[in-house]
Amino acid sequence: MPSPANPDFESRTRASFSRQGIMELIGATLDRVEPGRVEISLAFRPELSQQHGFFHAGVISTIADSAGGYAGFTLFPAEAGVLTVEFKLHLLAAADGERAIAVGEVIRSGRTLTVCRLDAWVEKAGRRTHCATGTQTLMTLVGRAGVKD
Amino acid sequence: MPSPANPDFESRTRASFSRQGIMELIGATLDRVEPGRVEISLAFRPELSQQHGFFHAGVISTIADSAGGYAGFTLFPAEAGVLTVEFKLHLLAAADGERAIAVGEVIRSGRTLTVCRLDAWVEKAGRRTHCATGTQTLMTLVGRAGVKD
Amino acid sequence: MPSPANPDFESRTRASFSRQGIMELIGATLDRVEPGRVEISLAFRPELSQQHGFFHAGVISTIADSAGGYAGFTLFPAEAGVLTVEFKLHLLAAADGERAIAVGEVIRSGRTLTVCRLDAWVEKAGRRTHCATGTQTLMTLVGRAGVKD
Amino acid sequence: MPSPANPDFESRTRASFSRQGIMELIGATLDRVEPGRVEISLAFRPELSQQHGFFHAGVISTIADSAGGYAGFTLFPAEAGVLTVEFKLHLLAAADGERAIAVGEVIRSGRTLTVCRLDAWVEKAGRRTHCATGTQTLMTLVGRAGVKD
Repeated sequence: MPSPANPDFESRTRASFSRQGIMELIGATLDRVEPGRVEISLAFRPELSQQHGFFHAGVISTIADSAGGYAGFTLFPAEAGVLTVEFKLHLLAAADGERAIAVGEVIRSGRTLTVCRLDAWVEKAGRRTHCATGTQTLMTLVGRAGVKD
Repeated sequence: MPSPANPDFESRTRASFSRQGIMELIGATLDRVEPGRVEISLAFRPELSQQHGFFHAGVISTIADSAGGYAGFTLFPAEAGVLTVEFKLHLLAAADGERAIAVGEVIRSGRTLTVCRLDAWVEKAGRRTHCATGTQTLMTLVGRAGVKD
Repeated sequence: MPSPANPDFESRTRASFSRQGIMELIGATLDRVEPGRVEISLAFRPELSQQHGFFHAGVISTIADSAGGYAGFTLFPAEAGVLTVEFKLHLLAAADGERAIAVGEVIRSGRTLTVCRLDAWVEKAGRRTHCATGTQTLMTLVGRAGVKD
Repeated sequence: MPSPANPDFESRTRASFSRQGIMELIGATLDRVEPGRVEISLAFRPELSQQHGFFHAGVISTIADSAGGYAGFTLFPAEAGVLTVEFKLHLLAAADGERAIAVGEVIRSGRTLTVCRLDAWVEKAGRRTHCATGTQTLMTLVGRAGVKD
């Protein structure tokens, strides 16, 4: 894993996360910020459910996409912004749990493009189930007016 | 497009949608339910944003995943449930708008698996921008205890 | 669809295609080159098969990837090269046919990234079956030593 | 990893691989067959190239798709066939090497669907480069006339 280009990577990441209104709405927290690896989690509430009462795949996608995006962002130069180009997610098991945890990890870090692996788990009665896995392409945005995160 | 196996497809779809807690939380509405095609939309609120103040990709994914899932569901036999196996989404443009619209359309409808195309647009000052496109695999669940949608 | 930046797009595309050794090995031909849309086809031979005697998914991927790559390439400036960033393909039906046809079409053409839709069909006894669909991200390479296609 | 349902998994896998005509055409060999993990490799020849003289992404896809398909197949019951439902591949680096190696590994093994991770490397002058990564969905085919691999 390359070292972060910006020693301030954690505070920049936390500041950007705090500007994502959706994270507050769904109750997600930014649990770990390491170079090239970020973890976000979320407690279950009926307001986050699909029709069977489990976490909706879109909610899992929301925290997985941000986990990957910020994993890439930790390695970006200061002043660069991050953009998701595309992502794919396999839903491996019903997201039936009291809590969901998403981890994004950088697989390849390039000047323009970054590729991350995305994974998510649900916890129920102390047992973790791997409920989603996938991959994501990010783009580093440099010199776009007003885009710094 | 195959005809719906179940003449009741619209009311079954609407009933299932109303059980997705996340749709109420984000304010999404089920605008159109046709055989093999479903449309869901959503007004912008700061609570749905990513760090630049646009719709978060996860929110777009949430309505796109449900649009595709229900597009497939309209063609399922009564008593069958639907499960997203995987999906991929390209974020084609910043989701900067007052409203987001997601459309799911069945490309291939099989006994066990269904493939859908997912698309999303944002509207701003009367202009539509195609902000996301992708594809999705769904599974028909038959005879799973308690899973009927 | 944006107009080609380079009036010479067809001859540049055909010249590049002729340098892809794999196309000759599998017997693929570049049938149509239009701005933002390219078609490649292939006759069946047992040497192209998977274990059931149909076209191998990798062979379909090979012509679909090149069709999409060259669809993007038709819109690139002269001297720019093309690189596949990622692609996803759904295998919708057994690729059982005498001929396979792949079409790549540009969905979004950007300065750095291009997104294409990929589709493939097989023909058997005069009937076409849609056997694959998917999407692809391409990158425009400018100013890389020796990369001009 | 679940144990193979069929003690004969290696010979069944090797027999099926030998029926894939494309593997002989491109010169691929089935190097390792373990429960839930398969490795396929390939020497470079100009006939396998894209326009810059590297392995074509479609060739990498061909061995990656078969590696994943057979990784899943090792865990299938006897008499069951395997089908690729979809796959996605990121091209992480130019596939510039004397040899390419693809590995498929089962992430989740279900009754109907299996999810694999796909990876590929190129070797050049003794150095390995990770040139592709992705994921794949497979389907277990049971009781389809004539489909036993």
